[in-house]
Amino acid sequence: MNDTLSEFRLADWSSLQLTQVELALSRWVACPVSEPAPAGLGDAMRYAVLDGGKRLRPLLVLAACEAVNGNPQAALRAACAVELIHAYSLVHDDMPCMDNDVLRRGKPTVHVRFGQAQALLAGDALQALAFELLTPDDDTVATDTQARLCRMLARAAGAQGMAGGQAIDLASVGMPLNSAQLHEMHRLKTGALLQVSVLMGACCGSASGEVTNALRDYGAAVGLAFQVVDDILDVTADSATLGKTAGKDAAQDKPTFVSLMGLEASRHYAAQLLAQALASLDKVDKTSLHGSSALRALADMLVNRQH
Amino acid sequence: MNDTLSEFRLADWSSLQLTQVELALSRWVACPVSEPAPAGLGDAMRYAVLDGGKRLRPLLVLAACEAVNGNPQAALRAACAVELIHAYSLVHDDMPCMDNDVLRRGKPTVHVRFGQAQALLAGDALQALAFELLTPDDDTVATDTQARLCRMLARAAGAQGMAGGQAIDLASVGMPLNSAQLHEMHRLKTGALLQVSVLMGACCGSASGEVTNALRDYGAAVGLAFQVVDDILDVTADSATLGKTAGKDAAQDKPTFVSLMGLEASRHYAAQLLAQALASLDKVDKTSLHGSSALRALADMLVNRQH
Repeated sequence: MNDTLSEFRLADWSSLQLTQVELALSRWVACPVSEPAPAGLGDAMRYAVLDGGKRLRPLLVLAACEAVNGNPQAALRAACAVELIHAYSLVHDDMPCMDNDVLRRGKPTVHVRFGQAQALLAGDALQALAFELLTPDDDTVATDTQARLCRMLARAAGAQGMAGGQAIDLASVGMPLNSAQLHEMHRLKTGALLQVSVLMGACCGSASGEVTNALRDYGAAVGLAFQVVDDILDVTADSATLGKTAGKDAAQDKPTFVSLMGLEASRHYAAQLLAQALASLDKVDKTSLHGSSALRALADMLVNRQH
Repeated sequence: MNDTLSEFRLADWSSLQLTQVELALSRWVACPVSEPAPAGLGDAMRYAVLDGGKRLRPLLVLAACEAVNGNPQAALRAACAVELIHAYSLVHDDMPCMDNDVLRRGKPTVHVRFGQAQALLAGDALQALAFELLTPDDDTVATDTQARLCRMLARAAGAQGMAGGQAIDLASVGMPLNSAQLHEMHRLKTGALLQVSVLMGACCGSASGEVTNALRDYGAAVGLAFQVVDDILDVTADSATLGKTAGKDAAQDKPTFVSLMGLEASRHYAAQLLAQALASLDKVDKTSLHGSSALRALADMLVNRQH
């Protein structure tokens, strides 16, 4: 099936997917009925994950899985796992020793609400839970797929991925990064997790090397575009629209695409990256993909979002 | 082979195992040659892991693997992975918002040396690395084993394990815990990771249900004994011997086995747990175990250690 973009309604598709994701997260994250987490930890974990967030990464996982006609149960677990990694990184990132942010998704951050120690533990426990979700002790996901998903997520989350990018970010405050350094920081800090979302979705099916490469390129372009747009929104949107403190990058003298290349060039760059992402899909679409409408629409939404 | 305790020299066995573990950790933890972690993150990770620690958990993994004649390459990865989880938990535990400790293994703690933000990230990256180590992209470890190891470690590290126990610990300062509550806290906080070390080692071979149950009982007894001895040493040893600040539990009014049952009864309890651990092995030894000398000697060392 290769439905065209004009027939595809992202809002309808997303709504269906998000219902599943929210239900699964609600059941799997420190569920107060089946697995109560001790001493307030479960509350902090649920607060960090539930009832907020655009769920971009889960949507990318599910769209990529759909494109390769993969195992939906594996994809739902992968979608939730990658969201848990994202959620834990926000909890830790917001802490006073990092960005010291008090507002996230329009609510007090986890450490403001539960205290720093509990926030630290909740983040740690969410990371562990991500890998627990990927390795169910039943026959819904082949163990070969489980192992591959863990391998991919671990690498994207760690020193060669998200955590490494955050370390560059830490070291770069007030430093004039050049374009290559800025790209490298974002490739790791946000790009790695967005790209791996696409690749984990692909891993839930039996994608050929050619398809995997196309999706890898798509994921790289989308991951970078996301950050460029984030930098644009940081200077053009207000805190209420963003649900987090706007203008923080400029205030903290952090290097951004906007500070490096200016606002208009950044907008042009984002559009260019979107075109690249779509071109990657074109290479394998019609012959090898089950349907790429969701991936296409997500890339478009991600670049043209207002918050 | 069932060599007897009298013929077995733990020091020789440990020395051989530790050489392998140190070499593997040095190669795998943010190796400055093959995979440099960015912006000082690698230095913080290596500082947290290398050149210190008793490596009890790795030794338990390797001893259990030996007892079931398992895959040594899988066991070495499991041994390093569980040590990384332990190491990251110490880094986060020592931070000002948690125990605020400045001395660990006789050296300044990671946040004192590298700053809080880098310590937070290093801990996060070490946890991710643990799961990366468990899922090598080659044929040294069967993917079925990889998935099982990830499942076990994730659960033992998360809200139903170590992180959950730390949350109880946080909530219990200045609170009179009863014996059941104190046991539950330690079963999660330190017991889960020690027990899973044994079970991960067993998982590297094809242990029968009977053997796995015996090793689970052994791991539970040893895990609890470890904490009882820790509580004893906190009041009887000095900081120089411990390599960390002694007397902190009492100073912080934390409930301990010593504060609950007194010093002599705690010593008696530790001896009793050692006997239980050995009795668990007796049940399956001679018929089903390849050799339990290392497990026996480790239990003995763990209870009779002076630091």
